[in-house]
Amino acid sequence: MSTGTINVSVENIFPLIKKFLYSDHEIFLRELISNATDATLKLKHLTNIGEASVEYGNPMIEVKVDKDNKKIHIIDQGIGMTKDEVEKYINQIAFSGAEEFIEKYKDKQGDDAGIIGHFGLGFYSAFMVASKVEIITKSYKDEPAAHWTCDGSPNYTLEETDKTERGTEIILHIAEDETEFLEDSRINELLVKYNKFMPIPIKFGTKTETLPKPEDAKEDDPAPTQEVDNIINNPTPAWTKQPTDLEDKDYSSFYRELYPMQFEEPLFNIHLNVDYPFNLTGILYFPKMTNDMSIQKDKIQLYQNQVFVTDNVEGIVPEFLTMLRGVIDSPDIPLNVSRSYLQADGAVKKISSYITRKVADKLKSLFNDNREDFEKKWDDIKIVIEYGMLTEDKFFEKAQKFALYPTVDGTYYTYEELKEKVKATQTDKDDKLVLLYASNKEEQHSYIQAAKDKGYEVLLLDSPIIAHLIQKLESEKEKVTFARVDGDHIDNLIKKEDTTISKLSEEEQETLKTFLTETIPSEKFTVQLEAMDSSSNPFIITEPEFMRRMKDMQKTGGGGGMFGMGNMPDMYNLIVNTNHELVVEILNTKTKKKKERLTSQALDLAKLSKGLLKGEDMTAFIKRSYEMIK
Amino acid sequence: MSTGTINVSVENIFPLIKKFLYSDHEIFLRELISNATDATLKLKHLTNIGEASVEYGNPMIEVKVDKDNKKIHIIDQGIGMTKDEVEKYINQIAFSGAEEFIEKYKDKQGDDAGIIGHFGLGFYSAFMVASKVEIITKSYKDEPAAHWTCDGSPNYTLEETDKTERGTEIILHIAEDETEFLEDSRINELLVKYNKFMPIPIKFGTKTETLPKPEDAKEDDPAPTQEVDNIINNPTPAWTKQPTDLEDKDYSSFYRELYPMQFEEPLFNIHLNVDYPFNLTGILYFPKMTNDMSIQKDKIQLYQNQVFVTDNVEGIVPEFLTMLRGVIDSPDIPLNVSRSYLQADGAVKKISSYITRKVADKLKSLFNDNREDFEKKWDDIKIVIEYGMLTEDKFFEKAQKFALYPTVDGTYYTYEELKEKVKATQTDKDDKLVLLYASNKEEQHSYIQAAKDKGYEVLLLDSPIIAHLIQKLESEKEKVTFARVDGDHIDNLIKKEDTTISKLSEEEQETLKTFLTETIPSEKFTVQLEAMDSSSNPFIITEPEFMRRMKDMQKTGGGGGMFGMGNMPDMYNLIVNTNHELVVEILNTKTKKKKERLTSQALDLAKLSKGLLKGEDMTAFIKRSYEMIK
Repeated sequence: MSTGTINVSVENIFPLIKKFLYSDHEIFLRELISNATDATLKLKHLTNIGEASVEYGNPMIEVKVDKDNKKIHIIDQGIGMTKDEVEKYINQIAFSGAEEFIEKYKDKQGDDAGIIGHFGLGFYSAFMVASKVEIITKSYKDEPAAHWTCDGSPNYTLEETDKTERGTEIILHIAEDETEFLEDSRINELLVKYNKFMPIPIKFGTKTETLPKPEDAKEDDPAPTQEVDNIINNPTPAWTKQPTDLEDKDYSSFYRELYPMQFEEPLFNIHLNVDYPFNLTGILYFPKMTNDMSIQKDKIQLYQNQVFVTDNVEGIVPEFLTMLRGVIDSPDIPLNVSRSYLQADGAVKKISSYITRKVADKLKSLFNDNREDFEKKWDDIKIVIEYGMLTEDKFFEKAQKFALYPTVDGTYYTYEELKEKVKATQTDKDDKLVLLYASNKEEQHSYIQAAKDKGYEVLLLDSPIIAHLIQKLESEKEKVTFARVDGDHIDNLIKKEDTTISKLSEEEQETLKTFLTETIPSEKFTVQLEAMDSSSNPFIITEPEFMRRMKDMQKTGGGGGMFGMGNMPDMYNLIVNTNHELVVEILNTKTKKKKERLTSQALDLAKLSKGLLKGEDMTAFIKRSYEMIK
Repeated sequence: MSTGTINVSVENIFPLIKKFLYSDHEIFLRELISNATDATLKLKHLTNIGEASVEYGNPMIEVKVDKDNKKIHIIDQGIGMTKDEVEKYINQIAFSGAEEFIEKYKDKQGDDAGIIGHFGLGFYSAFMVASKVEIITKSYKDEPAAHWTCDGSPNYTLEETDKTERGTEIILHIAEDETEFLEDSRINELLVKYNKFMPIPIKFGTKTETLPKPEDAKEDDPAPTQEVDNIINNPTPAWTKQPTDLEDKDYSSFYRELYPMQFEEPLFNIHLNVDYPFNLTGILYFPKMTNDMSIQKDKIQLYQNQVFVTDNVEGIVPEFLTMLRGVIDSPDIPLNVSRSYLQADGAVKKISSYITRKVADKLKSLFNDNREDFEKKWDDIKIVIEYGMLTEDKFFEKAQKFALYPTVDGTYYTYEELKEKVKATQTDKDDKLVLLYASNKEEQHSYIQAAKDKGYEVLLLDSPIIAHLIQKLESEKEKVTFARVDGDHIDNLIKKEDTTISKLSEEEQETLKTFLTETIPSEKFTVQLEAMDSSSNPFIITEPEFMRRMKDMQKTGGGGGMFGMGNMPDMYNLIVNTNHELVVEILNTKTKKKKERLTSQALDLAKLSKGLLKGEDMTAFIKRSYEMIK
């Protein structure tokens, strides 16, 4: 038996690092600027704790593109490295100086001083885009500067050099096939994408600034200008501050920083700020929502220590909240891992439920503090709340306090208020509370009107997922059922003990039914005689609740299943009001032709009311009607 | 100056490999089975070329889960390793035995014998899920078997052992937090996902098979059964065969293998098969499409040498073809790289345009071979073709030969045929060809009818992106304009020299116009008097083409821009037919009330025709109409 240690040779692993370390070559700039930031923050920490007796000053990081010589320079004024430190930290792949630093210098609170580095791999990402990399570095310690060069072979040279300013300069000799990174516009794009909110100012070129005119200037004199450093980042973005230090306008202007192309104001924001049991800061914004849920995703940006990571927060933020916008910053979210892993990770689960709770709390306080304003915003935010109620049980519970049920007339009830309001009138003979709703005020107008004539409240529930939510509400609440107003004649939707007496005798009803069943296509309509008010319409077409709801649910996924109702033909009932004059006339008219004409005109009008009169039938109806006017 | 070589120590890199080698831990099984497959294919190759004097036989790979002892075994009957080879290939991270093998044994054609391995990293993925890994292996060479053990520390032991059967067994001692992989159902899921079409049979447990009854069995005797190996994969999936060896039913049954839950038959398939300048095989299927483009994506599966890689082929397949289904297998597609990199990669661009060309060629031959059948399928495939025409110029060109323009009556023209057919009748006085279309046969019925009455052809163009495509067609073709039938009165859509004479004098027209403009809300309708056939409707509501098209385009993205027409109110014209009896009656009626009643009923009917009569107005109209019947 022999024993040993698994071996790894740099010749084998280096090509893999160059090719596969990150899936995206552009990451090199983020990594090198993160290193430069760490080098600066380390110096800050050392001066703070008195370990370095140098002036910290106002250091910045500079990025320069030298297109002619195919070079990019990244220059910091941070801690720097001695020759020995280069040997130790650079020549050893995956040896993280950051972890060692944190271990050595962490203060009593375990604060990591905001240092980003973890694995000591980031520097090598330079070789993804550079055929040769140089480091020129001068430590804050009183030692000569060092100059390291490597062509990626992986051989290096290391010598003393005469750099005198403290800090590190990285020089990338950009490879032939990576020249896109020599374009100012491309580098600017990357800086804005990844480094926009990093904590040390980053300079990229200069810009021209207009100065105020001197007092003695003439009207025509051009305003004086000066060249100033072009700083691409905001080192202290709003989410890094305390909520108490921020006003509404600060949140609003930060929104503009995040989404410069977005002209609408967000409706409100939620400031996240927790440091136990995990670290998380951030600001979420509620934008105006539309009913199209899919297009609104991927607007939340994920940062780690102010470095942009991704705008795909799936798995971290509960799905219903991916419609929001804003920023989350947490060093505790594992990256480079799969979604399924994220969803199983305990820390991530806690983060997700913390965010859900904060959002629910904020909604509740908005509702309590200014109900009128909350009602005004309801239509723009309901899709998120309803989707959350459907998918997260904890949110469903909390939402009882603020979820609203608007009526077609614009009154907004909570569930409890609604129940209180309608229980006297809308409880049926079996003691079940029937909540009436419409999905479209225009299309279902005549049905809504019939319900209102009875003194009932009609809700307007028009979200695409409402059928699912109703299903859930019915199963959570007791003795409550939802009924769409066009599901049946109103007296059948809320059945009371008293029944209207039919003007027609049993025999007459039989005769009428026989005639109508023969005349009206039975594959489309099931004829049903009802004794109703004589002022109700003579013919009413209804679509039974159950089937329609199953179909609605299938349209938005789930419910009903693959062999479900989705492909079933539409089923309608034709309710005939035996107490309406016209119906009596149809019964009593002698000539078959006239009987049929009356029936077909009445049926066309009922179809019109339900939105079913179309195409050729509609054209014929209009033609006939024009003739009737003359 | 000093020189040296960058160093990497296994203590630093090993934890990174364990944590970050693959973003998904489940990948370990794919990697180990790929290794087992390679080991078997290598043996096959050596026996084929006479380098190994052993019997190749019918080797399989076996996966066993030992839940009680928290172990997974992966056993192959392949080439095996000697103790020295274990030292060389296993104890050296990222040293790829596969590349060395291919280099050494490749035959004259440069054939790689289907071997999968590349980087020599796959084996280490075992440590993502296992706290300890054992290898027991016996080479095909006459040498003792070897037993290697490593607890991931990264220390190992290596000793001789007494295994006698040729091949390698990997034993994973599953880590505490990875016990999901000890569930048979989870392993089965992974095998089906990644290994379903790998070239060596993979056994996972046994299953019970029913045998035919013996001839002398009684009626009631149960059919005999036997336990047989449960082979989870199909080692020779259809795409690995030559098109000439496959019949329609083979393609159809392979579709069923790929999508067992899909009950509809695909419309047709395209077999891809190219080996220069890149290697690509695959079969694409055209399913029935719906107009919702987004939900149909991500159905194409990408393989490399029969190993499943991903079902996200964005960047590899042109976007318009991501609505198709099927399989693509190519060792030439770089993986683990970003989308933006993929899109820039030359090889990938070539693959993408090859696929586009093959699809266009197939469509053309389907059209030529059986036009009738192609026309029948048009509605189910048009969304892909139209989207392709819009987004890929080369496809647009090729599609001229098979893209169809159906009329509302179900005649299908190519563009050239259509032009030929209508140029005599539908060329206007400015020598411009006007192609009429409708987007909805039912809703626009009366407008379609008016056009047909003139002897014009009306196309039915109802895809969501049709406004964009029309825009493109108008700019590509000369002197052609598309006009939706409800854009204006038909005589204005195709203007001819001859004009109908108005029955009303100039003065009468003036009086009429003044009355109508005062009566009809001007913010909704612009009144426009026209002398038309007396049989045309008295009032017609139209919506000008330009504005409507811009709005349609904005709904489906692009066109119009952020400050565009999307938020403009709808604009309608009310065309009044001065030659219609009813209009003359409105003019001549003396009492203002009756004049208004006639106008409002005529307007309601015109609104009805254009689908604009809604809500309260509709309810009132119906009520009024019921009264008129009685």
